[in-house]
Amino acid sequence: MEMQPEEKPQSAALPRPRVPALDEILGKPFPVLDDGLIRVVDYMGDDAAIVQAARVSYGQGTKKVSDDRGLIRYLLRNRHTTPFEMCELKLHVRVPMDAWRQWIRHRMASVNETSTRYSVAIDAAQRTAPDRWRLQAVDNKQGSSGLLDPEAGARFSAEEAELQDHARAVYNRRLEAGLAREQARKDLPLCTYTEAYWKMDLHNLLHFLSLRMDRHAQQEIRAYATVIGREIVARWVPLTWEAFEDYRLGALALSRLETAIVAALSGGDAEKAREIAREAGWLKPSKKGGLARNRERAECEAKLARLNMTVPWKSS
Amino acid sequence: MEMQPEEKPQSAALPRPRVPALDEILGKPFPVLDDGLIRVVDYMGDDAAIVQAARVSYGQGTKKVSDDRGLIRYLLRNRHTTPFEMCELKLHVRVPMDAWRQWIRHRMASVNETSTRYSVAIDAAQRTAPDRWRLQAVDNKQGSSGLLDPEAGARFSAEEAELQDHARAVYNRRLEAGLAREQARKDLPLCTYTEAYWKMDLHNLLHFLSLRMDRHAQQEIRAYATVIGREIVARWVPLTWEAFEDYRLGALALSRLETAIVAALSGGDAEKAREIAREAGWLKPSKKGGLARNRERAECEAKLARLNMTVPWKSS
Amino acid sequence: MEMQPEEKPQSAALPRPRVPALDEILGKPFPVLDDGLIRVVDYMGDDAAIVQAARVSYGQGTKKVSDDRGLIRYLLRNRHTTPFEMCELKLHVRVPMDAWRQWIRHRMASVNETSTRYSVAIDAAQRTAPDRWRLQAVDNKQGSSGLLDPEAGARFSAEEAELQDHARAVYNRRLEAGLAREQARKDLPLCTYTEAYWKMDLHNLLHFLSLRMDRHAQQEIRAYATVIGREIVARWVPLTWEAFEDYRLGALALSRLETAIVAALSGGDAEKAREIAREAGWLKPSKKGGLARNRERAECEAKLARLNMTVPWKSS
Amino acid sequence: MEMQPEEKPQSAALPRPRVPALDEILGKPFPVLDDGLIRVVDYMGDDAAIVQAARVSYGQGTKKVSDDRGLIRYLLRNRHTTPFEMCELKLHVRVPMDAWRQWIRHRMASVNETSTRYSVAIDAAQRTAPDRWRLQAVDNKQGSSGLLDPEAGARFSAEEAELQDHARAVYNRRLEAGLAREQARKDLPLCTYTEAYWKMDLHNLLHFLSLRMDRHAQQEIRAYATVIGREIVARWVPLTWEAFEDYRLGALALSRLETAIVAALSGGDAEKAREIAREAGWLKPSKKGGLARNRERAECEAKLARLNMTVPWKSS
Repeated sequence: MEMQPEEKPQSAALPRPRVPALDEILGKPFPVLDDGLIRVVDYMGDDAAIVQAARVSYGQGTKKVSDDRGLIRYLLRNRHTTPFEMCELKLHVRVPMDAWRQWIRHRMASVNETSTRYSVAIDAAQRTAPDRWRLQAVDNKQGSSGLLDPEAGARFSAEEAELQDHARAVYNRRLEAGLAREQARKDLPLCTYTEAYWKMDLHNLLHFLSLRMDRHAQQEIRAYATVIGREIVARWVPLTWEAFEDYRLGALALSRLETAIVAALSGGDAEKAREIAREAGWLKPSKKGGLARNRERAECEAKLARLNMTVPWKSS
Repeated sequence: MEMQPEEKPQSAALPRPRVPALDEILGKPFPVLDDGLIRVVDYMGDDAAIVQAARVSYGQGTKKVSDDRGLIRYLLRNRHTTPFEMCELKLHVRVPMDAWRQWIRHRMASVNETSTRYSVAIDAAQRTAPDRWRLQAVDNKQGSSGLLDPEAGARFSAEEAELQDHARAVYNRRLEAGLAREQARKDLPLCTYTEAYWKMDLHNLLHFLSLRMDRHAQQEIRAYATVIGREIVARWVPLTWEAFEDYRLGALALSRLETAIVAALSGGDAEKAREIAREAGWLKPSKKGGLARNRERAECEAKLARLNMTVPWKSS
Repeated sequence: MEMQPEEKPQSAALPRPRVPALDEILGKPFPVLDDGLIRVVDYMGDDAAIVQAARVSYGQGTKKVSDDRGLIRYLLRNRHTTPFEMCELKLHVRVPMDAWRQWIRHRMASVNETSTRYSVAIDAAQRTAPDRWRLQAVDNKQGSSGLLDPEAGARFSAEEAELQDHARAVYNRRLEAGLAREQARKDLPLCTYTEAYWKMDLHNLLHFLSLRMDRHAQQEIRAYATVIGREIVARWVPLTWEAFEDYRLGALALSRLETAIVAALSGGDAEKAREIAREAGWLKPSKKGGLARNRERAECEAKLARLNMTVPWKSS
Repeated sequence: MEMQPEEKPQSAALPRPRVPALDEILGKPFPVLDDGLIRVVDYMGDDAAIVQAARVSYGQGTKKVSDDRGLIRYLLRNRHTTPFEMCELKLHVRVPMDAWRQWIRHRMASVNETSTRYSVAIDAAQRTAPDRWRLQAVDNKQGSSGLLDPEAGARFSAEEAELQDHARAVYNRRLEAGLAREQARKDLPLCTYTEAYWKMDLHNLLHFLSLRMDRHAQQEIRAYATVIGREIVARWVPLTWEAFEDYRLGALALSRLETAIVAALSGGDAEKAREIAREAGWLKPSKKGGLARNRERAECEAKLARLNMTVPWKSS
C-alpha cells in the first residue's frame, strides 16, 4: 500500500516510540551466573514500529490494536521477517569469554568489547559451586546430563579456585615486569569475564533466542538468552514475544515423512505408517534384536508422543 | 572433533572437489520465461565439503557415504546451517528487472549486474502470450488466480507490444540525440531484461529457494527459482537437495496451539480441541452466522486436512 | 578499559540519548527531485553513544566534550568503525525506482518497500524539465556532462509525458480488467516512484554517503545522498559529520607510486619522479605524438594539481 | 555492457578457472607461530573471474592481459569492490584462541570451528620462547615495543609451561571424573590452539589483510595475515595482489587539512601551512614549553616526513 498523503502530517507529528515498561528497566543490571550481568542501554522501535513497516510493504489498512496483534502474528508465522529488523536493542553484557565465544558467532550484530590489549583484564573468572558440576551426557556428545555429587564437586571447586588464582598471579607478575598486556593475557582462563556493548535488530535477536534458549544450548549462554528473552524482549515488544512463543519456541516441525506418518495414523492405518518408515530405512533390525538405532526415527517418536499418538512400531 | 595429524597428509592429497553432473551443464543456458536464462558459471564445494566442515565442528567420526547422507540430513533438520555456507554457486542470469527487484532483496549475495549507465540497455522486455494474463486473486491481496480468457488476452498482448515499442523508440531517440544513457533509460518498462552474475552460498541459496519456490512467490521469480533448485542444486548437491525437500519444501510447521489441538484430536477429545480454539479467539461468530473469518484458524484447518484429521468445529 | 563498578549506577540513571536538533525535523519531509522526499522516522544514538562504545573497546578514560571530538576523529581516521555501528537512522523515502535500484545495492540495510503486488502502484513517475536533459560524457562512459539546449529539451519532455501517460493508461486498463497487480505493473516506467522505510547504522551510512555523494554518482541518487548527509546526519551527529568531511569527503588518497612521486618532487628531483612514472608504464608515447592515454597517470596529475605541484612530464 | 549472444557459446565451453600456482600448494600446511598452521582447502575464481564480473557491470570491452591488469587496478583504486566478491578462499587454520578472538570479529566469513563441547580440546597451547616476551609500548596503549631480556624471559617461559601444565592436568581430571566437556574446558588457557575451516570472499579478505597485516595489529594475528597475503593471495590472484600493495598497503591517505598543508608547502608558503594547523588547534603550547601533545598533528608530521617535506612548525 502506498502511504496516502493525508497520513504524512499525522506521522510527522508522532514522537519517537517509547516503551514505558522497558524504560523502567533501562540501565538496570540483571545478574546472570556468579558474576555476569545484562542491562539495556538503548533501544529503537516497538511493536507498533513493526506494524508500521509492515503496512508499507504488505498494505494492511486496518489500524486497531487487535489488528496489530493479528498482523504481527501473521508476519512471524509466515516468515515476513523484514519488519522485525526495524527494531534494535543495545545491551551491555558481562559474560565469561567461553560463553562469549558462542555468542559472537551470531554475525548480524554490532559489538564493542573490552580490549585486553588496551586495558588490564577484568579480575574475575566464572567459579563453579560444588553442586553445579555437570556430567557428560552419554547419548548427546555435546551435552551434559545430571550433576556430580556435591562432595566430589567440592574437590573440583577447590581445584578451580586454585588454578584461577595461579593464572591470575602469573598474569599479574607479567604486568609488573612491564610485559605487553596483549601477551600477558594469553594464559588467563577461558572463563575470564569480559564486557561488551552488543546491538542487534529484533529479527536477528529472535533467531539468536530460538537457538540459545533451546535446551541443546549450553547452560551458561542459555542463562543469558533466557534473561534477554523473558525479562527484556517480553517487556519491550509483548505482541511479538507472544507470537514468538507460539510460533517458534512452542512450535513443532514435521518433515515430509513425518507428516505422511501422522496422516496415516490419523486415518487409523498403522500399517501404512510402518511402510513409510520402513521405506525410509528407519526399521532396520539391530544385531542384538530390536530396531537398530536411528536418529530420525527417534526424533519422529518424540514428536508422535507430543502429538498424543501411539508409535506404530516397537519403540526403541 | 579436532583433526588428527594423520588425516592431514591425506587431505593435502585431495584435489579440489568436482561434481561431474554439474560440470556437464557448466555454461549451458537454461531458458526461463520468454527470453530469460540461467547458467552455472562456477561453483565451489559439494555434499562432501559440507560433511567435511561439519566434522570439524560436530566431531562426527564415521566416514561412509551412507553416513554422509545421515549427517547432512541431521544438519539440515537441526538448523546447523554453517557447513552449508562452505559451498558457493555462481550463476549468470538474464531476468526482467521487475523480477530482479525481488531477487536482489536477498542481501547475502554477491552481484555484478549490467549497468545501463555504462552500456545501452538490453533490447528486450518480457512479453506476455494472450493466454498468460493472470487475474487478481480475491482472497490473497498479493497473488494471482486463474487466467484471462485468451481472446481478451490478445488485446492486452497487442497493447503490451505497442507500449514496449513506444518506450524503446523514445529511448533510442534520446540516445541518438546524445543524451546520457543514465537518464535516457528512465522510461524503459520495468520488465526490461537485465543480466547479472549472481553468487551465493548454499545455506543462503536454500533460504532463497524456500521463499521463491513457494506457491506464494510471484510466478516469474518462481520460474527461475525452480530451475535453480530442480535443475542445478539437485545435480550439484543431491544429498542436500533430498534433505531440503524432506525438511523444508515438504515440511509442516505446527504452532504451539496447533500442536495442542492435534494432540487433543489424536486423543479423541474434540471438545478440548474446540476449547483451545475458542480461547484463542478463533471461533467468534460472524454477523451473518457461521464463524467470523480468522486467518490463523483457516491455516490450522488446512493443516488438519493435510494430517487427515477432521476439523472439530464447523469449518469456514 | 573495563567499566568500573562505580560507573554502572551512573549509567543506569541516564535517559535514552536524544538529539534536539534532529527531534526538531522528525517527520518533516525534505523534498528531493520533482516529487520525491526524505524524512527521519526514528534514530538511535548520537555522538556520545559512539564515544561510549569506543571507550569500552579502546579504553579512553577522558570524558570532556573536547575529548569526545578528538576520539571521534581518531576513530574515523583510523578505521575503528565498530563504534559507529551503535547508531541507527530510520528514514522514509520516496524515490524513482531507477534510483532505488542503485540504492538497494547497499546490502547492510533494513528495508520495507511498498509492494506493487499488494497495492496499486504510486501514480507518479519522475518528469524532466526541458532544461534538465543531460548529455552523455565522452571521457566517462558512465557519466553525463553538460545539458541539452532547452528547446530541444522541450521536445523530449513532451515525449516523456506522452510515454508516461501511455504506460499509465495501459496499467489502468489492466487493473480494470481484473488482471493481477503483480503482472499489470510490468510495463510501468523504471522511474515510477516507490516509497520505503530504510534503516541503516551510521558506519554503513557513511560508506553509502561517501559513494553516493561522490561526483561520479548519478545526479538523482546524489540529490538524495546530499540531503541525508547535509540536512540529517550533520544535525544528528555533528562531530562525526565534521570528521567525515575532513577524513573522507575531503581526503586525498595517494598510492604507493604517487607517494614516491610526491616525495621526489618535494625533494626537487623531477627526474626521479619521471623515472618512477616511466617504470610504471605511464609515459608511453602515443602514435600521434604526445603521451598515450593512461588512466592512472591522469589521476596522478589531478592529485598533483590539488597538491599545488607541477606535473614533471608533459601533461596530457 | 550487456553480454552479446555470440559470447555465450564461448563462455559455455570454458572449464572452471584453475590457478596452477595455487593448486601446487593446495593442502600444504604453512607453519605459523610455534604450533599453528594455515593451508588452502579450496578456492573459487581467479584474476580473470574478477575481470569477467567487472565487464558485465562496467562494460569494459577490451580483452588483453595487459588490459586485465589495468582494469583490476582501476577497480581497486576506485573502490569498485563487488567484482572481488566473485572469488572465494577456503582455509584450514590452527590458531591460538586469543588470536582467533580477533580473527572471528570479521563477520563476513563462513566458519566451522572445532567444538570443545563435542570433542576433547586440542592438547596444545601457544608457548613463548625466552627471547620472545614483548614489553608494553608506552606511547601506544594497545601495542608492544621491544623485548624483555632473555634471561628474565626464561623465568616467564618456565612459569608459562608450569601454568599450562597445571591447567591441562585439571582439565584431564575433570574429564576422567566424567564431567561434561563443555564445562571441563572452562579454565583452559586463552592461548589453547583451536582449528577451523574459514572461508571468505576476496573483497572481504583484502579488508581483513589491510587491518591484520598492519603494524598496529597484534604480532600473532599479523603472522597469520602475512602468510595468507604473501604466500597464498599473492599466488592466487597476482594482479590483484600487486594492486593491493600499491593502493592499500603502500597508500597514504591525506585528510582535508593535510592536503591543504601539503599544497601550501608545495607552494612554498610555510606560514599558510602553520595557519591551517593553528586554526585546527594543533599548535597549542604545552605547560612545559614546546607544543602540547596532539595526535592529529603527530600523524601529519609522520606523513610529511614520508613525503619528503619539512615540518613547518617546531616538531614534537
